[in-house]
Amino acid sequence: MKSYREMNAEELKTERKLLEQKLEQYKAMGLALDMTRGKPSPVQLDLTNHIYDSLAQDGFKTKEGLDTRNYSAPAGIPEMREVFAQILGTSADKIFLGNSSSLNQMFDSLMRALVFGEHDSDKPWGQIEGRKWLCPVPGYDRHFRVTQTLGFELVNVPMTENGPDMDIVEELVKDEKVMGIWCIPVYSNPDGIVYSGETCRRLASMKTAAKDFRIYWDNAYVVHHLCDDEAEQGRVPDILGLCEEYGNPSRVYEFASSSKITFAGAGISCLAANKDNLDQAKKIMAVQTICNNKVNQLAHARMLPDLDAVKAHMKKHAALLRPKFEKTLDILGSELEWTGTAHWHKPNGGYFVSIFVMPGTASRVVGMCKDLGVALTPAGATYPYGKDPDDSNIRIAPSFPSVDEIDTAVNVLCVCAKITAVDKLLEEQS
Amino acid sequence: MKSYREMNAEELKTERKLLEQKLEQYKAMGLALDMTRGKPSPVQLDLTNHIYDSLAQDGFKTKEGLDTRNYSAPAGIPEMREVFAQILGTSADKIFLGNSSSLNQMFDSLMRALVFGEHDSDKPWGQIEGRKWLCPVPGYDRHFRVTQTLGFELVNVPMTENGPDMDIVEELVKDEKVMGIWCIPVYSNPDGIVYSGETCRRLASMKTAAKDFRIYWDNAYVVHHLCDDEAEQGRVPDILGLCEEYGNPSRVYEFASSSKITFAGAGISCLAANKDNLDQAKKIMAVQTICNNKVNQLAHARMLPDLDAVKAHMKKHAALLRPKFEKTLDILGSELEWTGTAHWHKPNGGYFVSIFVMPGTASRVVGMCKDLGVALTPAGATYPYGKDPDDSNIRIAPSFPSVDEIDTAVNVLCVCAKITAVDKLLEEQS
Repeated sequence: MKSYREMNAEELKTERKLLEQKLEQYKAMGLALDMTRGKPSPVQLDLTNHIYDSLAQDGFKTKEGLDTRNYSAPAGIPEMREVFAQILGTSADKIFLGNSSSLNQMFDSLMRALVFGEHDSDKPWGQIEGRKWLCPVPGYDRHFRVTQTLGFELVNVPMTENGPDMDIVEELVKDEKVMGIWCIPVYSNPDGIVYSGETCRRLASMKTAAKDFRIYWDNAYVVHHLCDDEAEQGRVPDILGLCEEYGNPSRVYEFASSSKITFAGAGISCLAANKDNLDQAKKIMAVQTICNNKVNQLAHARMLPDLDAVKAHMKKHAALLRPKFEKTLDILGSELEWTGTAHWHKPNGGYFVSIFVMPGTASRVVGMCKDLGVALTPAGATYPYGKDPDDSNIRIAPSFPSVDEIDTAVNVLCVCAKITAVDKLLEEQS
Repeated sequence: MKSYREMNAEELKTERKLLEQKLEQYKAMGLALDMTRGKPSPVQLDLTNHIYDSLAQDGFKTKEGLDTRNYSAPAGIPEMREVFAQILGTSADKIFLGNSSSLNQMFDSLMRALVFGEHDSDKPWGQIEGRKWLCPVPGYDRHFRVTQTLGFELVNVPMTENGPDMDIVEELVKDEKVMGIWCIPVYSNPDGIVYSGETCRRLASMKTAAKDFRIYWDNAYVVHHLCDDEAEQGRVPDILGLCEEYGNPSRVYEFASSSKITFAGAGISCLAANKDNLDQAKKIMAVQTICNNKVNQLAHARMLPDLDAVKAHMKKHAALLRPKFEKTLDILGSELEWTGTAHWHKPNGGYFVSIFVMPGTASRVVGMCKDLGVALTPAGATYPYGKDPDDSNIRIAPSFPSVDEIDTAVNVLCVCAKITAVDKLLEEQS
């Protein structure tokens, strides 16, 4: 079959008529489908339904006899800190456990930097006029919103198949106003890209003008593989160890959570950092709160006592998610690929598929889908300030809908993407 | 019996010899008792052990069908917001539920004010040089530490039997740098004083130079009565309604938590505020986090579905706490009262008994107790910067130790208080 770019105006118009017929069929269906957010499905959540059973059976004390019901242990209980240490490939002394939201820990870490500064800062970041933050794009809208809200100018960095474009990053960090970078190293949101070892090493070793530069390493999908074959699973080096190895021990805050392991709304979040960073954070957090929810930590530690248990549990998630991703990618492959007007990275894990439709058409595609009853994340959402300079990226979240719903929704998306591409090409030819 | 002040030097010296004998007896006992913090005892915590049972039995959905396991409902689930509304005598639309720590909500509210300002501020509070905060004394050390850490100059306000001395407060708020005041209106920490209706009205109606002045109304012990007779229970008007009535609707943030209702380390915290304050807070919190732990909210709502259930539950706490407070107050009454060198308020609820020993002796008393193996909250802790200008106040936390332990610990405290008083009087007479 000819790709769209190979078609002449006549052929494109014929194609458009076929697509319009499909569009009318979908219109007649009165759809109401939602592919906007990366929420686990109810069946995934069911995997964790018995997490609290052990409390009534075995009580509320940790292995060491600490009563989780009472005040104490602000950094979290030892057994759950150990589990997160294993997940992140670091040691438990570097782990601080929070409540359910790791985003909350990122926001609070930045608030501390704004009001108090980092341990190695000359002054609180709030006093740095024109402070900037690097944002690999496309990326996670909530990340961008945090740094935007906290007064950073957001600077786009293009993603490559190996992570953020490091040539550009290394240039940008020569600006002393550039205070940090967002990173989702494993199965990046939305592309599902895994950073290469080389990218990680360059991030850990690069020279930054700001001596208190920080990497916000959101390892949100570190154990969230779609395949059971370990050789195919995404893996990055321990970034804390790497930064230390390259003489920048305080460069990174690492984050993770059990939101997409256990319950999205009731999990455990984790901050991992070296001693200097953790001491600075703990000093302030000791004023902020007495302790976080340790009963929930205990329930988690009993259900998932070590990395092996986590891996076994994540295979169950993978079994539920895999058909949804496969369906999404199958349809994209058969409906869009041959047209030569769209491309995407095939993710081996995470929660998203990210499509690049023809530049200048993403907003129109999302709008058309909306009119047909298929809700997608707004075009531009994956870029700082909600502005995709190419108007090309669309994020698909296949985790929550059923396979049948995905089938319909992604087909609708493909039809809309094709119609807009045809129109664009016709416009260019005229 | 003669009070100490009526005794001559000879009589005081005789008294001292008797006290020394007692002291030696306690020394020989090798005590290790802790009365430092207001922690619930394990038996109190046992009252809540079955809070999670309903989850396995009845599932994770709210009455309206919301799945608490997933993301959503950042302000909390309706049924638990309603319970806190009943507890505080306000409406559920004014309630925002957080994770376990209300201190965390207070800290975060102040951080928001520092970085963003209040909705009615001219600028972020962080830009106000020399900002001040009113601290009724004695008060809660963790409150003071929050505002000190966040750069406020702490201003002492003496407590009266009716709450903060309002003549002084009304004078101090004429200073536009005074941005707010800490209040624990019911069973104040540490005195156990209940604010009078008049005090509440004056706080709600007073004219403040700062138009964005805020009362931080920590209603930590609102249902924490020691007596079952409702006529004797502490009660204050709904401060949100009162502030609105007097034309200052945005003046107050109210806080509460279930820390001393269910689990100290795993409860639900609550922020109550009017629409303008809550809109401002929610706008920022929507960036900070996706939602708080709603599964825990559901477990709480099922165990404590309304105010009547909360009251019935709190009677069980009272039954466990009352003997401890009675023991404490009995010993103080029999051992210290007659000497005329110490006084205290008899609390009808809350978690503390606060003694004023002879001015200039509190540090020495606490030090002597420590040497005998009885740990008390450090002298001065109940004052800003840890400095009691009279060196007189000592906070006793009777909730955690057993009645027998309290018997010993309070007797030790009395002996130490008497010896230091005798020494002080002898010094004055010489």
